[in-house]
Amino acid sequence: MKAARIYGKQDLRIEDVELKDPKADQVQIKVKDIGICGSDIHMYQEGTGIPYKKHPLTGKTVPVTEGHEFSGEVVKIGQDVKDIAVGDHVCVEPIIACGKCEFCRKGLYNYCEKGVGPDGSLQFIGFSDDGAMAEYVNVKDMYTYKLPDGMDYELGALVEPTVVTYQAVRDSGLTAGQSVVVLGAGPIGLLTALVAKYAGATTIYIADLAQNRLDKAKELGFTDVVNSGEVNLIDNVHEKFPQGVDVVFECAGAQPTLNQAVQLVAPAGVLEIEALFNGNYTLDITTLQNKGARVYTMMGYANGFPQTIGIINQHRDTFKKLITKRISLDDAEEGIKSLMTDKTQVKVMISPEL
Amino acid sequence: MKAARIYGKQDLRIEDVELKDPKADQVQIKVKDIGICGSDIHMYQEGTGIPYKKHPLTGKTVPVTEGHEFSGEVVKIGQDVKDIAVGDHVCVEPIIACGKCEFCRKGLYNYCEKGVGPDGSLQFIGFSDDGAMAEYVNVKDMYTYKLPDGMDYELGALVEPTVVTYQAVRDSGLTAGQSVVVLGAGPIGLLTALVAKYAGATTIYIADLAQNRLDKAKELGFTDVVNSGEVNLIDNVHEKFPQGVDVVFECAGAQPTLNQAVQLVAPAGVLEIEALFNGNYTLDITTLQNKGARVYTMMGYANGFPQTIGIINQHRDTFKKLITKRISLDDAEEGIKSLMTDKTQVKVMISPEL
Ligand SMILES: [Zn+2]
Ligand SMILES: [Zn+2]
Ligand SMILES: [Zn+2]
Ligand SMILES: [Zn+2]
Repeated sequence: MKAARIYGKQDLRIEDVELKDPKADQVQIKVKDIGICGSDIHMYQEGTGIPYKKHPLTGKTVPVTEGHEFSGEVVKIGQDVKDIAVGDHVCVEPIIACGKCEFCRKGLYNYCEKGVGPDGSLQFIGFSDDGAMAEYVNVKDMYTYKLPDGMDYELGALVEPTVVTYQAVRDSGLTAGQSVVVLGAGPIGLLTALVAKYAGATTIYIADLAQNRLDKAKELGFTDVVNSGEVNLIDNVHEKFPQGVDVVFECAGAQPTLNQAVQLVAPAGVLEIEALFNGNYTLDITTLQNKGARVYTMMGYANGFPQTIGIINQHRDTFKKLITKRISLDDAEEGIKSLMTDKTQVKVMISPEL
Repeated sequence: MKAARIYGKQDLRIEDVELKDPKADQVQIKVKDIGICGSDIHMYQEGTGIPYKKHPLTGKTVPVTEGHEFSGEVVKIGQDVKDIAVGDHVCVEPIIACGKCEFCRKGLYNYCEKGVGPDGSLQFIGFSDDGAMAEYVNVKDMYTYKLPDGMDYELGALVEPTVVTYQAVRDSGLTAGQSVVVLGAGPIGLLTALVAKYAGATTIYIADLAQNRLDKAKELGFTDVVNSGEVNLIDNVHEKFPQGVDVVFECAGAQPTLNQAVQLVAPAGVLEIEALFNGNYTLDITTLQNKGARVYTMMGYANGFPQTIGIINQHRDTFKKLITKRISLDDAEEGIKSLMTDKTQVKVMISPEL
C-alpha cells in the first residue's frame, strides 16, 4: 500500500509498503481523511519529534508513516476485538502509552513515563509509530471510537485536533457565562473558541494579526474579533471587562501574546497555554501575583474523545467550515509545505482515495 | 497612647496619638503581640505599600500606624457588636475590603476592587489604615477571631503570617501522602512546610542557602533539609522522585529558585508562588508544558482564619519555636532594621507592654 513516510528533517517519501494483518487487539482501518497538523509541519520542517532512536513502547524508529488526525472504515479486526466491527466508521486517539506507570494509572496517560521517546519523539502514532498518511493503518481497538450516524469522515478527522482544545477548555475550569480571550486564530485558536462557546462562554474575544484568519472567525459566527495589529487589544477588552476576563487561551505561542495574556486575565483567572512555546520566555510575575492569576500548561490530552465527538456531532455545519482544502496522498509533502506560509487555510485534509 | 507610625520610606516615628472609641461595628483591642513581617520591612526600606494618596475605603493617608500580625485583649466594644466581648483574647484578620464588589461577593475579598489604594498601598490595616504597632487598636468585629483557651498571644500573632501559607497549601490542592519541595526557609517557607505537613504531605524537602534557617527547619522536625549551596537540589530530589514532586512552594522569590521550581515539579504538578516577585522573570515554558505543570500565584488570603487558628492550636509547641525574639514598641524601628540582615531570627514579636 501507499504511505507517506518520514525519514528525517524535510525528507518525506511516498512509498509502497507492506500491509500487515492487525494484531489480536488491533483493528485495520481503510483511511478516509487525514488532517495536516502544526506538529506535522514542525516535524517536517525542523525535525521535531522524529524517532531517530527506537521508541521503548513501539520499537519503531525512522522511517515512520506520518498522520495522527484521521478517520476511516474498519476493514479487518484482530481476534480479541469485541466492540468494533468491520464496516464501522471510526476515528482514532493516536496516543502511545504503557498503561502501567503512575501517570497511566492516574488517567494522565498523556504524561506516561514511557510515552515520549528517548530522543524526544512524540507520544503519538504518526511520530513514534506508523500513522495514517497511508491507505490503511492498524491501531489498538481501545483507542478506536465509532462515529455517530451521519457524522462524516472529514468531521471524524477533526476530532483529534479538537480534543486538544477540549482538554484546554476543560482544564481551564471555564464555566457557563464566563468571558474568554483567545489569542491566535489559527486552527487551534478557532477550535478553542468554538469549544469555549459550546462550553457556555458568553463573551469570546479572538485576536490575531492575520486578517484572513479573523475573517474565518467571523464566518464561524464570532463577533468580538480583534485585529491586534490595528486595535489595542488590551484597551478593547478592558472597555467591557475592566478587570480582565475569566480565561485567556494562549494559542499563538509568542512573547507579545504571552504579555497580552498576563494583562488580560482577571483576578483569580486562568491563563491556559495551548500553543507550543520554545524554551525561555519573560513572564511578569508581579502582575500575575497582584491578581492571583494562574498559568496552566498542557501536553496532549487524555479521556476526551467521546465528549469531543459529541460536541462536533452536535455542531456539524460549523465544524465543517474549518476544512478548507482536500488533497491527495501524493500531494502530502506539498500540502505540508504550503501550510507553512498559506494563512488562508485552516484544516487541509489528505484523502488517500483521491 | 504610643504608636509606631510610618510617614514615608525609612521614616518610622514612635509618637503619642489620641485613642478614639470604637465605632458601632468595632472592637477596641489592647495589643499584646505584633509580629514583624517581610512586608513591614519592604514598606520601611523601600516605601512599598505606603498610602501617600487617600485610600478609598479607609480615607487614610500617611502617617499610618504599622502592624498587621497581632493579638490582644478586647477592652471595649461598639454598640452593634454581638459576638465579641470585653475580656476576649483575639487575633485579627487585617484585611480591607468593600464587601460589595464582584470579588468580595465571590468570597475573593483579597482581590476586592477597592482593596489596593490608588498608589498601590496594600490592602491591609498597618498599611492603608492604622495597624497594631500601638498600645491599642480599633478593628471591625467581623475580622476579629477569638483564640481558643490556652492558645497564647504570641501564637495569636502568628496566625496572620500562617494564614498566607494556609492559603497557599489549600490553593495548591495538596492532598495527604503527596510530596513537596519548599524553596526558601525564611518565616513563610517554614510556616508553609509546617502547614503542608499538617495537611498530610509525607515528604517535604526544604531548601535554602542560609544554614541558620535550615537548622531551624531541623529543629521543627524536618529531615529532608537541603543546603542548595552545597548539594545539587535537583539531583537530590530526583533520586527519590525521578519525575518530581506534586507541589513546589516558591518561598524565595528569585530567578534561580524559580528555575529550580520548574525542574522540580512533577507532571500535572503545581508550582505555587508565595514569595513576592518583582516584575519580569524568565520562565522555561517548554519544560512546564512537557509535563503539563501549572503555576499558581496568590495575593493575601481569604476565608482562612478559623482553619489556621485550629492548626496552630493543635500544634502549639511547634509553632512556638518560630518566635525567636521579643522587643518593646520603642525598639520597633531597630527590630525592623535588624531583620533586614539577621537571618538567625524567624519571628520577632513586638510587645507594647515591655
Ligand atoms: Zn495534531
Ligand atoms: Zn504509562
Ligand atoms: Zn505579614
Ligand atoms: Zn470589594
